[in-house]
This record gives sequence, structure tokens and C-alpha cells, in this order.
Amino acid sequence: MAILDNVTGGARSEAARATPDLSTLFRPRSVALVGATERSMWSVNAFENLRRYSPGIAVHCVSPSRATVHGVTAAASLSAVGEPVDLAYIMSPRDTVPDLLREAAANGIGGAVVLTAGFGETDDGRALQRELAAAVRETGIHLLGPNGSGYVDVRHQVVPFGLALPNLPDPGGASFVLQSGGLMKPLLSLARAWGVGVGMLAGTGNEATLSSTDVARYLVESEETGAIGLFLEAFRDAEGFRALAERALELDRPVVVLPVGRSEVARQAAMSHTGALAGDSAVTSAVLRELGVVEVSSMEEFVATTELLSRGVRPRGGRLGVVSASGGSCELVADKAADEGMTLPRLPPEALEELRSLLPAFSHVQNPLDVTGYATVNPRLPVDAAAVMGRTGAEHYDLLLFQAFVAPPEQPADPDFTRAHFAAIADTVKGLDVPVLLQDEVGVGLSDFARELFAELDLVRLPGVEVGLRAVANAMRYTGGRERLRGKERTGAAARPTSSAPLAEMPLPEGPLSEARALELLAGHGVPVMPYRLVSDAAGAVEAARLLGGRVVLKICSPDIAHKSDVGGVVLDVEGDDAVAEAYTGLMATVTARVPEARLDGVLVAPFRPGGVELIVGINRDPVWGPVLVLGFGGVLVEVLADVAIRPLPVSARDVTEMLGGLRGAALLRGVRGRAAGDVDAVVAAVLALTDAALGWGDGWDSVEVNPMRVDGTVVEALDALVVGRPA
Amino acid sequence: MAILDNVTGGARSEAARATPDLSTLFRPRSVALVGATERSMWSVNAFENLRRYSPGIAVHCVSPSRATVHGVTAAASLSAVGEPVDLAYIMSPRDTVPDLLREAAANGIGGAVVLTAGFGETDDGRALQRELAAAVRETGIHLLGPNGSGYVDVRHQVVPFGLALPNLPDPGGASFVLQSGGLMKPLLSLARAWGVGVGMLAGTGNEATLSSTDVARYLVESEETGAIGLFLEAFRDAEGFRALAERALELDRPVVVLPVGRSEVARQAAMSHTGALAGDSAVTSAVLRELGVVEVSSMEEFVATTELLSRGVRPRGGRLGVVSASGGSCELVADKAADEGMTLPRLPPEALEELRSLLPAFSHVQNPLDVTGYATVNPRLPVDAAAVMGRTGAEHYDLLLFQAFVAPPEQPADPDFTRAHFAAIADTVKGLDVPVLLQDEVGVGLSDFARELFAELDLVRLPGVEVGLRAVANAMRYTGGRERLRGKERTGAAARPTSSAPLAEMPLPEGPLSEARALELLAGHGVPVMPYRLVSDAAGAVEAARLLGGRVVLKICSPDIAHKSDVGGVVLDVEGDDAVAEAYTGLMATVTARVPEARLDGVLVAPFRPGGVELIVGINRDPVWGPVLVLGFGGVLVEVLADVAIRPLPVSARDVTEMLGGLRGAALLRGVRGRAAGDVDAVVAAVLALTDAALGWGDGWDSVEVNPMRVDGTVVEALDALVVGRPA
Repeated sequence: MAILDNVTGGARSEAARATPDLSTLFRPRSVALVGATERSMWSVNAFENLRRYSPGIAVHCVSPSRATVHGVTAAASLSAVGEPVDLAYIMSPRDTVPDLLREAAANGIGGAVVLTAGFGETDDGRALQRELAAAVRETGIHLLGPNGSGYVDVRHQVVPFGLALPNLPDPGGASFVLQSGGLMKPLLSLARAWGVGVGMLAGTGNEATLSSTDVARYLVESEETGAIGLFLEAFRDAEGFRALAERALELDRPVVVLPVGRSEVARQAAMSHTGALAGDSAVTSAVLRELGVVEVSSMEEFVATTELLSRGVRPRGGRLGVVSASGGSCELVADKAADEGMTLPRLPPEALEELRSLLPAFSHVQNPLDVTGYATVNPRLPVDAAAVMGRTGAEHYDLLLFQAFVAPPEQPADPDFTRAHFAAIADTVKGLDVPVLLQDEVGVGLSDFARELFAELDLVRLPGVEVGLRAVANAMRYTGGRERLRGKERTGAAARPTSSAPLAEMPLPEGPLSEARALELLAGHGVPVMPYRLVSDAAGAVEAARLLGGRVVLKICSPDIAHKSDVGGVVLDVEGDDAVAEAYTGLMATVTARVPEARLDGVLVAPFRPGGVELIVGINRDPVWGPVLVLGFGGVLVEVLADVAIRPLPVSARDVTEMLGGLRGAALLRGVRGRAAGDVDAVVAAVLALTDAALGWGDGWDSVEVNPMRVDGTVVEALDALVVGRPA
Repeated sequence: MAILDNVTGGARSEAARATPDLSTLFRPRSVALVGATERSMWSVNAFENLRRYSPGIAVHCVSPSRATVHGVTAAASLSAVGEPVDLAYIMSPRDTVPDLLREAAANGIGGAVVLTAGFGETDDGRALQRELAAAVRETGIHLLGPNGSGYVDVRHQVVPFGLALPNLPDPGGASFVLQSGGLMKPLLSLARAWGVGVGMLAGTGNEATLSSTDVARYLVESEETGAIGLFLEAFRDAEGFRALAERALELDRPVVVLPVGRSEVARQAAMSHTGALAGDSAVTSAVLRELGVVEVSSMEEFVATTELLSRGVRPRGGRLGVVSASGGSCELVADKAADEGMTLPRLPPEALEELRSLLPAFSHVQNPLDVTGYATVNPRLPVDAAAVMGRTGAEHYDLLLFQAFVAPPEQPADPDFTRAHFAAIADTVKGLDVPVLLQDEVGVGLSDFARELFAELDLVRLPGVEVGLRAVANAMRYTGGRERLRGKERTGAAARPTSSAPLAEMPLPEGPLSEARALELLAGHGVPVMPYRLVSDAAGAVEAARLLGGRVVLKICSPDIAHKSDVGGVVLDVEGDDAVAEAYTGLMATVTARVPEARLDGVLVAPFRPGGVELIVGINRDPVWGPVLVLGFGGVLVEVLADVAIRPLPVSARDVTEMLGGLRGAALLRGVRGRAAGDVDAVVAAVLALTDAALGWGDGWDSVEVNPMRVDGTVVEALDALVVGRPA
């Protein structure tokens, strides 16, 4: 797979491709708590968690000052433990940590968790974090942290974790990696309440060496992993993340990301928290989409979506069938489904017939199906109805939602009856060609009884309409996105030969080029550009206007003036020799008065063409993700619509067509109100010529923009361009 | 209060103003279960619920066939009970219900719940429901239902309810009225899990006589009510709802509405469910906003918002202070706050100083404040930090969110310590001028221990960031909306004297008027209209064009042609005698060929004025809410922006100004890209003249629309108009 190769203009490093083997960190048979002390709750908790949740793991305490800690004999140092240790869980004062890592490695320890804080997240700890990283490189030890609480491997019962855990969720295929340790406990409690089966939960802390991406890349290789959720404050390693995403897509083990730092305040909070900057959120969203990664925006959506995908739910489309015992809930589902771009198709005739004979006479047989309160009288009714919809609806529905159940309380009146009832549901569900999900009307937690029963019966349950349908929609988008991206891979649609672009004009001069220079460069790369002349006196302007014919526009041309209108550097709609000469003189006088220091290349004379639709086409260099194409409607509509499509480069013709079609003003190109339709193919060709030019220039530019690109029927042409060269 | 008087063109009826006294229905001392039988789970549940949750209420069973039901002696009929009965809970076969109501009334029973289904929700039950309504009118009994499960009055321990209830939420000030009985149990379980204090929960079923609005109007009068949540499938009684909203606003007991049926499928589901149609959702949203009613879109948001408002939380703005022990959660809050239009202002200098001395050296002192994992070492730290922010931030924050707690599990290790810890939080909170809310990082349920402790300490807790901040934003909008609406009331800003509008031209003829007639009518009411001439031959057209001067436009004028362009009925930009004459002839030929049956009034000649910004201004008659003003950008932008502002009539100048300012393209009127700014006051005056005209015509019209209304600097004029008269 090479969907996003070349994006940063170079081949990906081998390091980025290699998947770290972190088994020495994550699969220890023995753990040493270094700096163990009863005075620290972290130490108390870590000891208690290992004792309680890691029965197969030998736990040693290391304390330089006490012979007994947490009721066990403590060793004075790691070297003094006297038994093999696989993992060091380090809580010692920060200055001692680098040497402790060296000592650990010398004793054959392959993994370390450093809980101690005061490293890269503080001004005076940065040097120490660099020392830590150096010790890691020296020794080859795998380090999680520092400033992290550790991890909770529910599936393998490995819980080196410094916060109190009243209980754990069930083991399962949903793994999570969080850059925020503070959210690990809330996540566990939500997973437990919702009956989410969890594999690994790791907090990466300051990520001195191992990043959340590294951990995820380790996890994605495991067959036990169903899906991976990542809580990310920053993308520190775009290349590694791309490799993760590609591999995850290949293995169909979805990656779900909850990126924070969309708002200004959040970014400030993130900077103080981990010292890293999140990429611009719109660009990040666009990149994630193109990588087949699911983006979510709340903890609840994060957990529910990762769980659903980890259970192998892959709806091929958004056609839902619903069986409910509440008319109100049917309407809630219908509204929410519409919000999420899903539909509730009509029942096929054979289903109608069967359901009519099944349901009471006063019920309305339709999708969503309300089996009515009669389910209280006949508890089999909803199950039988679901069976009919599943049998008759395999071609009509991508997913059935089964709402007509009451999650059992902690102590059901008749546990055997309850078990048999849900076993019947599970049996019915398993025999159907359409996947069926249980869905509560509201996102409440399950009782232990319900959680255990559902796990035993392998029933998948969505926590309420709001979060549940969002998770379903995410699963649907994942499935569709994976197909689209893998289709690309097969057809090579994304693999445009960018090398065919002319590589002339390198290196670009630093800073903005004048408009004339920019247009000339782009024209040389096959971007259609309006006819124009660069002139340096009034007579030249008049001659140019005559050549071009009719109404013209005059624009000042200077590498120092980015916003020409603001300094009086544009005169529109001039016609006739005298008017043109006058316009030239006036324009030069105004500009030289307003910006006397600007270097002037002359005045650009071009035809005045008011009609058509104006696009803006920009290629920007995102600090994290590299070059991205930004497409939108230009002119007045830029301000009004504030609506652009973004994709990382390179893009295919199909990509650009999709981007144009997805704009809110897409109708403008199709020719509303009697206007001629714009030639979309010609627009696409012009945009691709522009992206080829930018990619051909390698890293030599900061920004390449055409605004506006005018589209009038089959005529597509750049009316203005900005190219900014990059410091070498 | 008369914010929305005259909206349907007449005075509100006395019936709509009167608040029903439903105490005979909702405050019984004795209940008779009519049609009680052990074979029905409804009967079993209703009996069990009353026994378990209504210790002060005498329960009687009525069965025509059995001497003993549910272990108690049953009476053969209501008349045979032999003791006073206040409420009849009727589960008998549907045909017997009207007579049972009469029998109940004859025995002095003032209230009835009818659980039996098969009435208005089915084709063959409609007549029976009418009979039921007739029996209610005859007897004066208050009837909840039919086809409803009853109600749960948690506060007064009155639970005539037919579904099994494993437990109840705590008593409190949040009351709920649901048109969907099937959502009552989910709501109770969510309220219990989240520690929401509930007063009354009622399901209104088919609403044969008592509507959810009636029940809400009863509840709103009680001092025990903090806020009322309404789940509505349909607004059946716009007048009553307005009265409810006005009274609620007056008493500051907020109304929160979860309206379903926004999507087409949901509307179909609603029709089958209750036989009623929801109003158009955009209009409904606009009306709710103008009534000071909070609209929500999910069950979770519904419950959390009603709870928050019921606890008296009234943030005067969106300035949040946050104390957290998780950097990740700080960022989540910041992102979500930005999404909801709230801010996290910087810490004032005095807070910075105090907090720096309080927190560990490695922490970053800012808002949102991450007190770091050090809270594990010093549990007082977050409380002290919150105290500093509360003391120093009264002028800077409208609300403090306190996240730095862990909700206690079912069995805390040290319950006394936990109690003391939260008591200290509660003490701190109570002494501050800024309201403080606890906020979990995720929306999990509380343990019984936590629920009881928080209730005892009167701590308000938000269920997670996503739902919690949405609820806070809703409370903020409610507070702001109430102030705005009550400000209007005081200044009389909404009370435009519509009677001053000329009432001439009544009644309007039925169906669409021709454009010339519509423009003439509107001009007569003070709406600025472009100059035009209606002509009936080519010579007339030429003369008109000369009079108007310059470039003109010719448009066919016919009451039968609504879309002139579609039949070739418009010629734009014509200049010169010959061209005008030719255009006239060509236009008439085309139109008579394409729509030979159309009545033609002639051709309208008007100046061709391509510049400026085009608005669309329409007044529509909503089937539920009456006349509403719809304002947006016209021309091409109608299609592209799909962005309109809607408000119910009448509107004030301030309303229209706000509507214009809220449009996505508002910048267009402020004059982007060197265009002259539009004269907003002139636009407002034109819009008000139009609304005055429509209101002056009473019920005589179906639709009044100007499209486009051209705005070019100070020039505002209707270029085209449509007025459709209504069948008398």
C-alpha cells in the first residue's frame, strides 16, 4: 500500500515502517515496583492492582530504605532482587530514573514504566527527559512514560497501574492507547458499565521514546486486537501514524481516534500538558478520513465506536431495520439515523405479510417496527418479529437494531427465565444473515448480571440511541472508507505519476513571487492561466489593452504586495485608450504613495471577465501532515460559505471530483438558474496540474494558491496566483 | 405577558389561559385497579408498584369475575368497593371503558388512568376514543390516556404505573411528561443512574382529553417543580403550549422539550403512534426559541438539561472555570465548550498567584486548571484550588466545573473518609459566589453510595463532558433567552401596533395574485417596490422603457404563472426601442405557446438592476404555529446557502435585525470586498411593512413573499412578489 507515499516529498524511513516488538514491556512474568513505599498511594495502588488483577505475575518491591514494603520483603536495589524481573515499574525521584533504567537493563529487564513526573512537561525537566531517552537508546529497554500511570492489560491480566481500580471491564478485543493518563480510569469505568470487552489500555505519558503510535502499531499486529482507540493530544509522528493506519486497514483492525486540541484553549492546555502541538483540526480530519481512520469527538463515542468495530460489526451501508417496543424510541432512532445519513427502508412485502399475522391487530406494521406494549404479554413477540425482519430483510437492511428488550437488573425476579429469554434472542440473532445489535433507549450502564449474560451469549449492545447510532454510523463510514481506499490501491487511482511534472524552476526563490512570475510558472506546468501582459508604463498598458481587446483590469505586480486591493493596487473594468492610460497612472501613484518601499515589477493587464463561478485552489504545507489541497468557492463566497474541502496530496482525478461535489455550493458548478454548467473535468485537470507543479517542486515552497480560478462553462483559468518559496 | 398574542390572528381563548387543576388525578389517597387480574403483567406490576412505592395509598382491586386478585379481596365493580376511591386505574377491555368512566364519576372518583389500548391509535378505535372524550366532558373526570401506562410521582410516592420498576430515582424537582409511554422506564433508569431528582413522570398516551401541555401546565404551578421536560411527538395545542411557556418563563420554571419527528421516517412513525403530525421542525425550533423553551435532541441531553435547570442553575453567560485532575479532560472540555459557544477565560492575576503557591512546581497554572496527579497525594488540593478560583473569579466566571473527584464506588474502602472529603467539597462550594458543578469525565451512572451522598450534600453533578456541557450550554441559553424575552415584555419591543397597518383590500381573492397586483398591494402597505409599468402591447412596452430609462427587464404578468422563467416569461437586460418591442413580441409568443390556458394580465416592464444583494422575505402560515417570517439571502444564494432565519410573527425591528445578523451570509450586507454596505434599517423597515401587511390581512392569505428584495446601499426594493389568498 502506498496511498500516501511521497506526501512529505520523500520516501518513508525504514524506522517508520518497522513495527516495534514490545512484548518485553507488555508481557512480563514478573514486575519490580521500584521506589515502592507505603506513603505513596501510587505505590499502594500499583501493588494492590498487581496482586488483585495479575495472579500469574511475581511482584517484587524495591526500596533503598526499607526492608519490608506492602507486607513483602523489599530488595535494596533492582540488582538485589535475586530473581528474574521482566518489567520495572519506576516511582523513584526523577533524578535517579536514568541510572535506574541502566541498572534495569544490566539486570536483563526489557521493559520499564516510569510513573515519576517532572520531565519534559516542565521547563527544568526537559534535559532530564533527553537523558532518559539516551539511556533507552543505550540499553534497548522499552520505556512507557515518563509521567504515565502504566497500563492495564485486561486480557492477559497484567496490571502495572498506579491508580485505584475498584474493578475491571471484561476482557475483549477493544484496545486503547491514551496520551492522557487521567482519562484511563474514566475509560475503564465506562467500559465496565457498558459491558465493553477490553484488551489493552495503555497511557503513554510524556512519550520520551515510545509514542502512542508505537504502542498501537504493536497492538495492531495481534490477532487478539479487534480495534484500537487512540486518545491523541498531538500527532508527533505522522509517518509512523500513516504506517499504523495502512497496516490497520490491511488487517481490518480499525483505528479510532479521539483528537483533542481543536479549540484554541484546548491547544494551550495541550501545550502545557504534553508540550506538543496538535495539527490544524480540519486538516487532521481530512487526513484521518483519507487514511481510513475513524475520528470521534467524545469519550462516549470513542468507547462505543471502538467496541462496536472490535466486535467485527461492518455495516456495508446505512439501511437500518428497527424492532422496538416504544413508538417514541422509533422516532428518536429515525431522527438520529437521518442526522447520521442513514435510512430506514420500508419493509419488503413478504415481511409485511408475516409480521401482520404475528403482531396484534392494532399495531402498525412498518420499519421502524413498534411491537407495542403487547411484548409485556408475549415476551417472544419482539424476538419473532426480529427473526422475520432478519429472514426477509437480508437484501434490504445492512443492520437490525433490536430495542425491544429490558436489560436485566442486578437481581432479576426470575434469573432462569431471563437467561432463557436472552438465550433465545442470541439464538435468533445468530441464525440471521443481517447483523443484529441490541440497543438500549438510553445510555445507562449494565448490571453485573446483564454484563455477564450478554458477554456469555456474545450479544452486542449499543448504549442508547444517541451514542449508539453515532457508533453505527462510524462503523458504516469505516467500512465504506476501507473499501474506497483499498479500491484505490488496487486500481492505482491515487498513484499519479508526479514525476512526469516538469521539475524546472528549482529552487524557487524564498518568499512570495510576484503575480506575473507565479502565473508564468504555473502556466509552464500546464495550469490554464488567463491571457495577460506585464507592462511598465502607460503606453505599454494601452497597447496591452488593445491586444487583449475590450474591457480590462489593471493590477499592481510586486512580490512585496500580497493583498493588492488593500493598497489600491487593482482597477477593474477599464475600456478605451485614455481610460487605460489614466488607470495606469493613477494606480502607480496610489501604490507608490501607500507602500513606497515595495519592489514593483510593473502592472499586469488582463481581460476583465466578471461572469462565471470563482474557485479558490490552494496547496498548503501542514506542519504535521505535509502538503494538503484546499478547494472551495472563491470571491465573495469564500467569506459567505466558509466551506472548503481538504485532502492530503497526492490526489487523483476522482478525489478532486469528489471534493468539488462535496462542497456546499456544488450546485453552482452544475449551473443553477440558467447559467451554463461548469466543465468539471477541465477544473479537475487544472487542479491536478497545480498539485503536480507543487509536488514537483519538492519542499521548495510554503504555499501555492490560485484565487480565483474562474470557471465559465468550458473556460477554466487562473485569474490570480500566489506562490511562496521556502527558505532552503 | 403577551409576547405572542395575535399570532393566530385572534385573541387567545379563556380555555387556553385557564390552568387545569389535576389534583384529583395526581394526588389520590386511594386507587382502584379496575380489571385487575393475575394473568396480566400490567395488573401485577401496577399492584406491586403501588404496594412498594405508595405506602400511604389504599389500593383496591376490581374484578367482575374473581373474588381475590393479587392476594386481596376484589370488588365486583367500582360501585361495590365500599370505601372512598380517588383514582381509577383502568385495564378493562376497551369497549367497557366509557361506561366505567361514568361509573367512576358516579362514585365520586375524580381521576382515571386508562391503560387499555385500541382507541385513537387504530382505525377502528377512533369512534370509541370520541366516546371516551364525551364521557369525560359529561362527568368532569380527569383522564390520563387511553393507551398510557400511568404516572410515577416520586416526590409524593404515588405510582399507578403498569410496568415493572426495579427501583425509583430520588425525589427532586425535575418533572417529565412524555407522549411516549415506552420511554418512561428508560427515563427512570437514566434518572436513577445519574442521581437526577425527579418529581413527577407522566405518560399521556393518546391524550383523548388531557394533553401533555395540560399536565405540564398543572405541574408548572407547583413550587415543588424546578423544571419540566416534555417529550413531544406532536404539538396538538399551540395556544395551550404558548400559555404554558409564558407562565413557565414568568415563574422561572424552565420547560425543556425533546421534539421527535424531525425526519420523514420519524413523522411516519409518529403518525402511526399517536395519529398526530409534528410541525415542521425548523419552524418549531424557531417558535420554541421565541417562547424561551429549551429544545434538546437526545434522551440523555433531555434528562441532564431538565435536571440542571431544576436545580436552579442559571449561568448568566458562557464563561467557564475548570478544575480537573486530568490534562486530557481539560482539552476535551475546552473543545466541547468552544463547540457550544462558551469560553474558558484566563485566570485573573490574584488567582494565578494564589494557585502557584498552592500547586506543585511542575504544574501549569491556567484555566482549565489541571491540578495534576498530585491530587492522589493531597486530596485537599483540588478543593483548595476550586476555592481560590471561586473566590477570585466571581467576576470572571459564570460557572465552575469541578472535575477533580472520583465518584465513590458502591463500597468505598473508607466510607467515612469519602463522606468527609465530599462534605469538604460541598462546604467549599456553598461559600462561593460562582456556582460550582461536579463533572465526571464520562457519563457513567453513580453507585448508590455516591447517589445518596451527593443528594444529601446537595451537590449537582454533570454526567460527563459531552452531555454535561451540552446541558450547561442549554442552561446558559435558557437564562439569556429569558432575559431577552422578559426585556421585550418590559420595553414592549414586540408589541408593534399591527392595527396601524392599512386593512384595505380585504378579503384577498383566493389563489395567487398576479405579480403586478401583488406589488401594488404591497406598495400600498408601505413596502418599497421597484418602479414598473404594466403594459399590454409592444408600443406600451417601448413607452414604459423610455419612461424608466436605460436597461429594462420584461416579465409576463399572470395569476396562473408562478415560475415565470420556466415558461420563457422573463427577458433580462433589454435596451433601446427596437429591442424592447422585439422582446415584448417574442415573450408573448413564447408564453402563449407554452401555457395557452394561462390568464395574462400583460407584461411588466421594470428597470434592469443587476447589482446589490438579493434577499428573500417570506411569510408562511405554519399549520401548528401560525404565521412565521422567513428571511434569507435570495437569488443564487438561496440554493447555495440554504440558510434562513425563522421567527413567529409579530416581530420587532430588533428581531428582524437579529435575524439578518444571524444569517451565514450576514457579511454580504455589511459590504464585503469593497461593495457598499446595505442599509440594514431600511431592510428592517421594508420587512416590517411586509409583516404588517400580512397580519393586517388576518387569515385571508396563505403565503406572502418578496423574492428578491434587492438591497444596494440605501436602496431597498421588492423586485418580485407573490401573494396567495386563502379560501374563505
